[in-house]
Amino acid sequence: MSTPYEAGAPATLRVLGIDPGLRLTGYACLEAGSDASAWGGSVRLIEAGVLRFAPGRSVSQRLVELDHDLGELLGRHAPAVVAVEKLYSHWKHPLTAILMGHARGVVLLGARRSGAELAEVGATAVKKSLTGRGHASKQQMQDAVMSQLRLTHRPEPADVADAIAIALCAARRHGLAAALGGGSQEPVKRAAAATR
Amino acid sequence: MSTPYEAGAPATLRVLGIDPGLRLTGYACLEAGSDASAWGGSVRLIEAGVLRFAPGRSVSQRLVELDHDLGELLGRHAPAVVAVEKLYSHWKHPLTAILMGHARGVVLLGARRSGAELAEVGATAVKKSLTGRGHASKQQMQDAVMSQLRLTHRPEPADVADAIAIALCAARRHGLAAALGGGSQEPVKRAAAATR
Repeated sequence: MSTPYEAGAPATLRVLGIDPGLRLTGYACLEAGSDASAWGGSVRLIEAGVLRFAPGRSVSQRLVELDHDLGELLGRHAPAVVAVEKLYSHWKHPLTAILMGHARGVVLLGARRSGAELAEVGATAVKKSLTGRGHASKQQMQDAVMSQLRLTHRPEPADVADAIAIALCAARRHGLAAALGGGSQEPVKRAAAATR
Repeated sequence: MSTPYEAGAPATLRVLGIDPGLRLTGYACLEAGSDASAWGGSVRLIEAGVLRFAPGRSVSQRLVELDHDLGELLGRHAPAVVAVEKLYSHWKHPLTAILMGHARGVVLLGARRSGAELAEVGATAVKKSLTGRGHASKQQMQDAVMSQLRLTHRPEPADVADAIAIALCAARRHGLAAALGGGSQEPVKRAAAATR
């Protein structure tokens, strides 16, 4: 895979953020300039929304729909980077976590096949990147996303704001990486290494 | 999807049992006669083994390999039924469970796309079907599989025996269903309903 911001390449980066789930999967496609490490910076929201899966459908049917819808997004936006949240273990409901894993597996498979680079960002890092603090409520995250991307209304449901925040955090890290770092509180990690 | 054992169809059923994991995925393809509800019955092991994924590879790389290898198995054996274990929540390590979910999601996606029927069998039902008891050690399961399929040696690693046991349990349920039931301690469940 090629490195974003390489010589001769246009100085913008398309990042598709995904918040996978079997009921709702949030997604957001951003286009970021190489100065995206600055708060706000030249980041533009291209499209965001949720993929909804009917609760009456089986898990396998929903995975087929997710794979199809994700393929459509990847084809239409051709992101250089697909960003997801890092895994964490403090789930209240183990079965919900395992089912989220089903959706995340299908997302990673589709993203990898598309040739996009995979980026994993920690939940705390995402919140810190958006609000300056590692702990923020869903509403604070929605407000931060709305403000920093100059949106006219708060992204709903929260899954959309989460996907935008994941994409924004990943885009800023790439901006930092392009600027040869400095000021980052966390090293830039890529999924190829981080998900081992 | 067509019902196995329908009029005019040959009275055998190919079942592919899968025990998904990101380190090892066990698989087993059985061919069962419609009398497979009897212990042993006319069940023949066609192929069994493990798909191994290099630990140095990223999760997404392993998922791509799993998807590829599973596709090869589905294409070569054209099973009417793909069987997996039902989900359960008593995992010691939540992250391991979530990663298993990644692999299981890719398996369900591939199986569904192939047009196979999905069958989910409970871990306790699998053990009961093989050993007569809901609790059995890995070695007891390996011995039961070896004996009932008249194998010349114990299937190793245990993941292979697990995949064979899952396929065998699913095949027997289909045999029972074809014989219009009676004597089954558990109703026949299909993934389309059971994974909701």
